[in-house]
Amino acid sequence: MAQSVEIVTIGDELLLGTTVDTNAVFLARALGEIGVPIARRATVADNEHDIADAVNQALERTGGVITTGGLGPTADDLTRPVLARLFGRELREDPAIVAALHALWASRGRGGALPPSNLQQALVPEGAEVLANGQGTAPGLRLTDDQGRWVIMLPGVPRELRHMTATHIVPWLTERGSGTVLRSRNVRTTSIAESALAEKLGPLKREVEGLPLAYLPGHDGVDLRVTARGYPAAEAARRLDAAVAQIRDAVGTYAYATDGVSMPAVVLDMCLAHGDTIAVAESCTGGLLGARLTEVPGSSRVVLGGVIAYANIVKEQELGVAADDIEMHGAVSEPVAVQMARGVRGMTGATIGVGITGVAGPDGGTPDKPVGTVWIAIDVRGEVTTNRAIYIGDRAEVRHRATQVAMDLIRRALLGMAT
Amino acid sequence: MAQSVEIVTIGDELLLGTTVDTNAVFLARALGEIGVPIARRATVADNEHDIADAVNQALERTGGVITTGGLGPTADDLTRPVLARLFGRELREDPAIVAALHALWASRGRGGALPPSNLQQALVPEGAEVLANGQGTAPGLRLTDDQGRWVIMLPGVPRELRHMTATHIVPWLTERGSGTVLRSRNVRTTSIAESALAEKLGPLKREVEGLPLAYLPGHDGVDLRVTARGYPAAEAARRLDAAVAQIRDAVGTYAYATDGVSMPAVVLDMCLAHGDTIAVAESCTGGLLGARLTEVPGSSRVVLGGVIAYANIVKEQELGVAADDIEMHGAVSEPVAVQMARGVRGMTGATIGVGITGVAGPDGGTPDKPVGTVWIAIDVRGEVTTNRAIYIGDRAEVRHRATQVAMDLIRRALLGMAT
Repeated sequence: MAQSVEIVTIGDELLLGTTVDTNAVFLARALGEIGVPIARRATVADNEHDIADAVNQALERTGGVITTGGLGPTADDLTRPVLARLFGRELREDPAIVAALHALWASRGRGGALPPSNLQQALVPEGAEVLANGQGTAPGLRLTDDQGRWVIMLPGVPRELRHMTATHIVPWLTERGSGTVLRSRNVRTTSIAESALAEKLGPLKREVEGLPLAYLPGHDGVDLRVTARGYPAAEAARRLDAAVAQIRDAVGTYAYATDGVSMPAVVLDMCLAHGDTIAVAESCTGGLLGARLTEVPGSSRVVLGGVIAYANIVKEQELGVAADDIEMHGAVSEPVAVQMARGVRGMTGATIGVGITGVAGPDGGTPDKPVGTVWIAIDVRGEVTTNRAIYIGDRAEVRHRATQVAMDLIRRALLGMAT
Repeated sequence: MAQSVEIVTIGDELLLGTTVDTNAVFLARALGEIGVPIARRATVADNEHDIADAVNQALERTGGVITTGGLGPTADDLTRPVLARLFGRELREDPAIVAALHALWASRGRGGALPPSNLQQALVPEGAEVLANGQGTAPGLRLTDDQGRWVIMLPGVPRELRHMTATHIVPWLTERGSGTVLRSRNVRTTSIAESALAEKLGPLKREVEGLPLAYLPGHDGVDLRVTARGYPAAEAARRLDAAVAQIRDAVGTYAYATDGVSMPAVVLDMCLAHGDTIAVAESCTGGLLGARLTEVPGSSRVVLGGVIAYANIVKEQELGVAADDIEMHGAVSEPVAVQMARGVRGMTGATIGVGITGVAGPDGGTPDKPVGTVWIAIDVRGEVTTNRAIYIGDRAEVRHRATQVAMDLIRRALLGMAT
């Protein structure tokens, strides 16, 4: 059994309920993957006594503690001095950190000298190891006492914490670890309900290859997660791979990806493989489909661009949508979606054009076209497919779901062409 | 000052990172609203020793503890017996709960008799008050010792916990309470670093109107939060309003909004007030600025649309960017950004045109134009402003920050015109 660790998350905002403690969840998963159990977690305010007390108790129980937060440049950042005192160490300014802070400040092109309060981040307890941040100004610190008990201090900014967990925490703890792992894999599905998935899975609906199956519904669709716990790495990998293959087989084309792969990445890869390019014409989504497709690095090889046709005049002038059709069928209609897709394809020379027009809400619905009604058309090398749906949810959800379906239509069209 | 309480959330899943502890956030907000501060929070596994230890320590510190989880019918539900033992009470089956469990089982139309494991939920420590669930099978419990110290046990199912917080916890704590509240307000800033804000705030940098000030950096900028704790509602409101006014005064135009108001909402409101309309021309952000602006309901009164000019050919053909300028200065350059802004304004007839072109990364950087370099131009009724910055962060952050700055430039231009 690996040594267990405790987490102490520090910050008034975590106790006020204004911030959700996503760092605690992230650390739990990252440590779980390398088989290091988290024995307990405490959350304390930005307050000397409570920080010292919580860390001290955790150290006495498990001998290994990770703290998050309280390393920044302001007066409520107390982790560094409090833990230095707990370990009986002096704080000393580290010249290498001072130089790095000055360099980072200069590289950001801000005028003037580094504000003096930033230098607080260069104070290091005697004998502590400095863990480079890589994403921001505050370095992490590791303090170890003469009984081998240790505290690692990480910043509270999630991006920095995630980077440092990967570069410092996981490698260091793995070396000290147990040989078993806790790993999960996901099969991502879209355009199908949880209950319909369970029917398709039949005997696999609760357990696959001896691994429990969880259903995780979200805006992108339902993710199916299998988890292997307590197996050596090779056995866990074998079971997970076999489970993923069985699940994909059972759900068929509703499965669009595995693990963290996003729909935009899947669609872009397929387009690259087919030599296709995409242009978008967006009304109710206002650029969101373009934004999601171009989230993916390298998307410029596929995405040419498009038109945000929020106003009808833009639909007509830039995309050539017939004013008569808008008049007769309304801006949210099949002929308008089709002309948007065709128009943007013609305008850019892309092989695939997408048109989206709908009522995102909260207002603007009619009995005929309630809030959530969206028409989507895709034109793949001249072959047009349309889709109408009424999405449930608030404005943000309706827009997100519509972009997901638009990409799924492209995926299905390209799958069809491949067979 | 109201008695403070501690929260102990119980459940393996909370330490594995498979479940986000939304109950803790919910309780923090609900108690904050009635002025009951949460002094500390602990999360422990489904394990007798850890539950007893955490609750006992919390009781010794504050005398009031709310636990969540571990009240269900399965073997890992330990809260009830562990706390009975901690308080030295016997567990006795409560006939009223037994009857209610049978009735609930029958009403759900399940076949057969109530599974015996469910009767575990009818066990009540001697002298405990039973708190009706109202949404599920497991009732809550309140135990008080002879020194007046108390533990309230709530189920972990969020829907049940929320209902019981409203029906049992809030009324009970309010009666015992002091008539004070815990409330926060935020001043939202952008385009300024945390340390530079502290310098601007000078003597206010830690405390304003006797209220502590916290710095919350995020992708939108730094939010400044003041918190009033332990004051009656009217006094809290007076201090918070005065503090917000002083902070806005000290940080000047870096403050763009208060509380939960977003930059898109601020910009759209200003445009409505000025009779302005917006069109966007986006390269590296791929539609994200359009998507963010149109997140706001009613944005169609201001946003006309625009062009996603990801490929250079779209920049040239649709926006009239000179191929020579792209050749000479590169696509990421001031003249290209300016021509994009002007081009999209001309194309749509909007009063404000925005052009964004940059290197979002992770690849494509050069020594001259490292990853994160973004040129933004805004053309407000013919008057052009440009901005170049190197944003820190991954692709998503660079893109988000660039859209935030683009909107901030519009805001500043309109502010300038108003004066």
